[in-house]
Amino acid sequence: MTRRRTLFLGLAGGIAGASIAATAVLAQEGLNPVVKARHAQMTLFAFNLGTLGAMAQDKAEYDAEAATAAAGNIVKLSSLAAGPMWAPGTGVGDVEGTRALPAIWENMDDVITKAVALNEAAVAMEAAAGEGLDSLKAAFGPLGAACGECHKSYREPE
Amino acid sequence: MTRRRTLFLGLAGGIAGASIAATAVLAQEGLNPVVKARHAQMTLFAFNLGTLGAMAQDKAEYDAEAATAAAGNIVKLSSLAAGPMWAPGTGVGDVEGTRALPAIWENMDDVITKAVALNEAAVAMEAAAGEGLDSLKAAFGPLGAACGECHKSYREPE
Repeated sequence: MTRRRTLFLGLAGGIAGASIAATAVLAQEGLNPVVKARHAQMTLFAFNLGTLGAMAQDKAEYDAEAATAAAGNIVKLSSLAAGPMWAPGTGVGDVEGTRALPAIWENMDDVITKAVALNEAAVAMEAAAGEGLDSLKAAFGPLGAACGECHKSYREPE
Repeated sequence: MTRRRTLFLGLAGGIAGASIAATAVLAQEGLNPVVKARHAQMTLFAFNLGTLGAMAQDKAEYDAEAATAAAGNIVKLSSLAAGPMWAPGTGVGDVEGTRALPAIWENMDDVITKAVALNEAAVAMEAAAGEGLDSLKAAFGPLGAACGECHKSYREPE
């Protein structure tokens, strides 16, 4: 379970100091710094997924190199040690500006399973993206679905 | 120059489609999506640097594992393929909400050199962070300086 641990290091504890530090650095931005960091990660997911999605939906010309780079970014982003970004007490009802449901912290093992699955779907996309548009399209569904798996269960509907 | 190329894939061209796609995905958020993605990357830099900085400044207890994880995150974030995030025409005077100076696009080779130096400082921090507080402190100055190198030359003062 080393990979799981790497992906979510510090989720269960030992991160109070780190979270406080991040709070000090980002407090001036208004939003809770942990929430802000999560949003930033999601923004970068969306930015890179947008590149792939446009090609998958024939809205942009297929570009093997750009697609592979975007997929590689999603691999890196989905393998960030995420513990401090999911510090307990930063869900809906705890802080403003988040749609992260308390169920996250009650089902952390499942959350980590879904996070690992996202990383695996991104790795598959990175391998597929440069192999032609059909290959990219085939990998896009599972990648989008992996995002959706977490959102369905753990994000408050708008 | 493969590493340089990987770090900034697509900077000089071939990314129009990808940028347009990202624009479509993120347009509803108000801010230019390229600017938003850059801000997201900087937010994640700051979040993880905050963890290290708090320890370096004795404001948080030294935690080898958390420090190594934060440094590892900075390694990944500083190695994202960044071309689409620095699309031409997204600096000060082109779009709202950015402090990215036009000098960036006039000195891209220097920008890439500085980006590579940041990645190298992060790699050094990842190696040092788990080796004790003194080791972390020694690596923190160069890492902060690497951030500053780009900000000094290429970010509009507030």
